[in-house]
Amino acid sequence: MKVSNLGEIELIKKISKGIKLFSKDIIKGIGDDTAVLKFDKKHYLLLTTDTLVEDDHFNLSWFTPEQVGKKAIESNISDIAAMGGFPKYTLISLILPKNTNVNFINKLYNGINKSSKKYKISIIGGNLTHGKNISITVNMIGIVEKKNLCLRSNAKINDLILVTGNLGASRAGLELLRNKKTGKSINNYLNTKCKLNIGRKLSNYVNAMEDVSDGLSSEVLNICSESKTGAVIYKEKIPINKTTINDTKKVNKNPYDYALYGGEDFELVFTINKNKFEKLNKIKSDFTIVGKILSKKEGVYLLDKGKKKKLGYGYDQFKSKL
Amino acid sequence: MKVSNLGEIELIKKISKGIKLFSKDIIKGIGDDTAVLKFDKKHYLLLTTDTLVEDDHFNLSWFTPEQVGKKAIESNISDIAAMGGFPKYTLISLILPKNTNVNFINKLYNGINKSSKKYKISIIGGNLTHGKNISITVNMIGIVEKKNLCLRSNAKINDLILVTGNLGASRAGLELLRNKKTGKSINNYLNTKCKLNIGRKLSNYVNAMEDVSDGLSSEVLNICSESKTGAVIYKEKIPINKTTINDTKKVNKNPYDYALYGGEDFELVFTINKNKFEKLNKIKSDFTIVGKILSKKEGVYLLDKGKKKKLGYGYDQFKSKL
Repeated sequence: MKVSNLGEIELIKKISKGIKLFSKDIIKGIGDDTAVLKFDKKHYLLLTTDTLVEDDHFNLSWFTPEQVGKKAIESNISDIAAMGGFPKYTLISLILPKNTNVNFINKLYNGINKSSKKYKISIIGGNLTHGKNISITVNMIGIVEKKNLCLRSNAKINDLILVTGNLGASRAGLELLRNKKTGKSINNYLNTKCKLNIGRKLSNYVNAMEDVSDGLSSEVLNICSESKTGAVIYKEKIPINKTTINDTKKVNKNPYDYALYGGEDFELVFTINKNKFEKLNKIKSDFTIVGKILSKKEGVYLLDKGKKKKLGYGYDQFKSKL
Repeated sequence: MKVSNLGEIELIKKISKGIKLFSKDIIKGIGDDTAVLKFDKKHYLLLTTDTLVEDDHFNLSWFTPEQVGKKAIESNISDIAAMGGFPKYTLISLILPKNTNVNFINKLYNGINKSSKKYKISIIGGNLTHGKNISITVNMIGIVEKKNLCLRSNAKINDLILVTGNLGASRAGLELLRNKKTGKSINNYLNTKCKLNIGRKLSNYVNAMEDVSDGLSSEVLNICSESKTGAVIYKEKIPINKTTINDTKKVNKNPYDYALYGGEDFELVFTINKNKFEKLNKIKSDFTIVGKILSKKEGVYLLDKGKKKKLGYGYDQFKSKL
């Protein structure tokens, strides 16, 4: 069987089954946005890694090298933000074809260094090796106060489900580029911005949190799977801005599909106790209630004009034809 | 200019220049086998990463998938061992073509899991993504007692330079495979073994230490560069076993070139004060004195039958035709 038949989710399950843990200092291993380790009296250590591959995650006829560097850093911070923490250190591993232009590396590192400086992240190591295609693997190390840790497994029945900002814009931008059309969503796709500051503030109030990297549907399914709950998402509540709707029309697609299954929005989805909802007024940012956590037996579904619809996983690294 | 013209060493220098550090908790960033961070009263945290790329670092007509998995783990532990520490956690990132056989992944993880179990390393995360060629990036996290940390920068003038085991066997094995010949050195190339236990014992006595991943010459040049010293290597003292010499003859090459510039032996090279030399008797292992640390102005050179010869860097990811 090929990995394209099995799919990413099943492959991760298969790999996870064979893994043994040998330390009591592991708070969380595989199964969340980052691994969580004991650190000091008040803090946990967070570790995550993510890879960008040329022509799969970035196309150099669309992205500048600076934007690629920025995307590599911001997308990894997004995972740290989803745990309620902040980034501190990074290691960067590059695979480069031997004919890569040094000027490309300079510009890539301009992007990496600018984003690192913005968040005061220190680059402490990495690796250079040669290969047929450019790829960038970032390993991000962060810290979170114990009381602020937001695990996927921490959603409670009757929690409200909210998202920051708007969804679907990144995928709309990608599709415009693919179809050689223009529109403002392209900016959302090319200029990755994580929600670190909002994540830090939210971490004081929320239960479960996750970043929207694979689409709202995948993230809610992950939270429900780890928390052993069900959930309902109200389709008409999903925040999609007018630009995204207009740009999606240009390629004859449904913007709700991009919000649910598109990915790379790097917004945050979180669950919160109803009684803490008003506390969010303290945070100057846009939040939208998009659903509610249910009991496990009620399942995970989308409510669309009163009809229950099944929610599936979004972007799959091996199955999806992206 | 292409990276193949600039070379790995210069590219790392170029990248390092643009990097800023934002934390006082960094004991060592780029420039050693691992990064070193403050951890607790008695320990430092060690972080390293290394990538294996198909057809560059492993050829699946020679390696079994288990051997690739083992190599990925052992080669990363080797960097932790070179700091005097021990490994605790790992994150594993795979790039896989969509047509990769699931059976290959099962066998690869058999190798990864066996090596991880052997050293009680917990796999706490990773990433799966698709791309044109298989690559495996391992991120290894370890611990070292503060008193046992062995930095490259810690070599002192008049220190003896020693190596563990024998050198050149791994490259001899690779060349046998390339030339479709047979010989026992092939085993050294295919079955990577780090020197963790010896490294842990050595860390009580040595000054600088490094693993032999790019050849003895590169490693000694790195130690001298970081310690701001010179060094002499006595060519005839370099330990090369009879099998390696015989196997090298089969491909009409010089075994000393493989020891100095071949790489992937994963032995340890270290410097030690003369007065501590006798302490090594406590450690049941083979060590060979191969040189001495000199003052910077004396330079770094090879002494070959009384003649001084220049030492160069060994395997270069971008320049070398491997």
